[in-house]
Amino acid sequence: MGRIICAGLGPGDPDLLSVRSDRTIRQARHVAYFRKKGRSGQARRIVEGMLAEGVTEYAMEYPVTTELPFDSPEYNAILAAFYDDWADRLAALSENHEVVVLCEGDPLFYGSFMHLYTRLQDRAEVQIIPGIPGMTGCWNAAGLPVTWGDDVLTVLMGTLPEADLAALMRQSDAIVVMKTGRNLPKVRRALATAGRLDDAWLVERGTMPDQRILRLAEADLDASPYFATVLVHGRGRRPMAETEAAE
Amino acid sequence: MGRIICAGLGPGDPDLLSVRSDRTIRQARHVAYFRKKGRSGQARRIVEGMLAEGVTEYAMEYPVTTELPFDSPEYNAILAAFYDDWADRLAALSENHEVVVLCEGDPLFYGSFMHLYTRLQDRAEVQIIPGIPGMTGCWNAAGLPVTWGDDVLTVLMGTLPEADLAALMRQSDAIVVMKTGRNLPKVRRALATAGRLDDAWLVERGTMPDQRILRLAEADLDASPYFATVLVHGRGRRPMAETEAAE
Ligand SMILES: C[S@@+](CC[C@H](N)C(=O)[O-])C[C@H]1O[C@@H](n2cnc3c(N)ncnc32)[C@H](O)[C@@H]1O
Ligand SMILES: C[S@@+](CC[C@H](N)C(=O)[O-])C[C@H]1O[C@@H](n2cnc3c(N)ncnc32)[C@H](O)[C@@H]1O
Repeated sequence: MGRIICAGLGPGDPDLLSVRSDRTIRQARHVAYFRKKGRSGQARRIVEGMLAEGVTEYAMEYPVTTELPFDSPEYNAILAAFYDDWADRLAALSENHEVVVLCEGDPLFYGSFMHLYTRLQDRAEVQIIPGIPGMTGCWNAAGLPVTWGDDVLTVLMGTLPEADLAALMRQSDAIVVMKTGRNLPKVRRALATAGRLDDAWLVERGTMPDQRILRLAEADLDASPYFATVLVHGRGRRPMAETEAAE
Repeated sequence: MGRIICAGLGPGDPDLLSVRSDRTIRQARHVAYFRKKGRSGQARRIVEGMLAEGVTEYAMEYPVTTELPFDSPEYNAILAAFYDDWADRLAALSENHEVVVLCEGDPLFYGSFMHLYTRLQDRAEVQIIPGIPGMTGCWNAAGLPVTWGDDVLTVLMGTLPEADLAALMRQSDAIVVMKTGRNLPKVRRALATAGRLDDAWLVERGTMPDQRILRLAEADLDASPYFATVLVHGRGRRPMAETEAAE
């Protein structure tokens, strides 16, 4: 009897995989991962040198659509068909094999795996191994406490409308913005509106070999990679109260 | 030359430590951790069976103050003196040794270690190893995507005032509330006010042997442990748009 195991990979440094993901990936005979056509793909890069000899790899390549906007119904239909197709293939494979699907960060936290996960319900046994989220790697790369005391942390996607971003940023102590990429100019404007631009850091490829950390106010907004996260550290409201001993 | 390494432990299951934390803890000769007086302490429990023979342990026991309220200036002063004292001791120890400080979850995410960290600046070399945050273990325990698409995630401390909690909950798709413990009745009222009580789960001791997951609406509000987190899953706004291929 087979099954599908989605292994969270953490932020990028292979040393930050969980002990369980590390062991699962090294023992795997069938390994699947998403990537952009013509690229090696971040998930596959993280496990470089870890895969067993003779492993079968399944590169799930996102459909290329240069002519469609990424938020159009047509593009979404193509993407849905792509996920349907891979869900069918993995379900079939899992009848006789254990298949390990690689997923950056934590699979249940804004992960693409969930498009397969929802389609695989009741069709295959699926197990998920948690991972250190990308944002956690980013605030560790920056080396400062992201939250303490009673701080409120808000996690936002750069794809949200500018006014929503600014309103939510204004109400938070600590802020994480993911999927910044092409949205970076908008994210920067929203932070300025919320009065937090001077506290904002841009972490590119956190914990990866080519990691870069800079103040967002000084960043080149046109050249930011997909693996980039904007961070505003908390302010440590009521820093002391409430410890484990208080319970 | 010595140094201090704070090792993130993840949510509770020892198999969810990072490969780096696991290796660092197994090799350690000096290990420090916080705990409540008279208790074994969660951090120490997670590494049970992993410590090398002959290791020296430093149990940093929170000062017991049955007569002071935990948010009083007096209690905060006692706690500050406690952190001062341990910062001095660890700094002295680190002149000749490598000291590993254990920290549940991720050290920079609402961790007690940061009270030592700020006090150790410029006095010792400090390295931090990220960990899977407790909340990530909790949403994996619940087995559902916590966020996808454009979902907004807000992380709140149960120690916040009820009106603040309710207002912030109302504006979020996904919600995490930590430090619920004695604050659970207030957290429940705030979720009801925000119209999200029926979507809320209580995860007690996520990924630990005695893990428990139940609907918050059905939970006994008086008997919840310190390691408990309230979760409301996101709604998956615009589920498809924006993949790595879009960049
Ligand atoms: C589709 S989300 C996947 C999130 C993943 N499941 C996680 O737990 O981090 C991709 C976004 O995560 C952020 N991200 C993930 N890893 C990162 C890293 N190492 N450095 C910077 N940003 C990262 C980027 O904002 C990127 O656009
Ligand atoms: C002082 S904070 C420490 C957070 C830690 N640094 C982290 O990354 O999770 C302690 C709170 O984290 C939450 N928590 C941590 N681990 C948990 C677990 N395994 N199950 C449930 N809640 C947990 C609880 O709400 C607890 O009150």
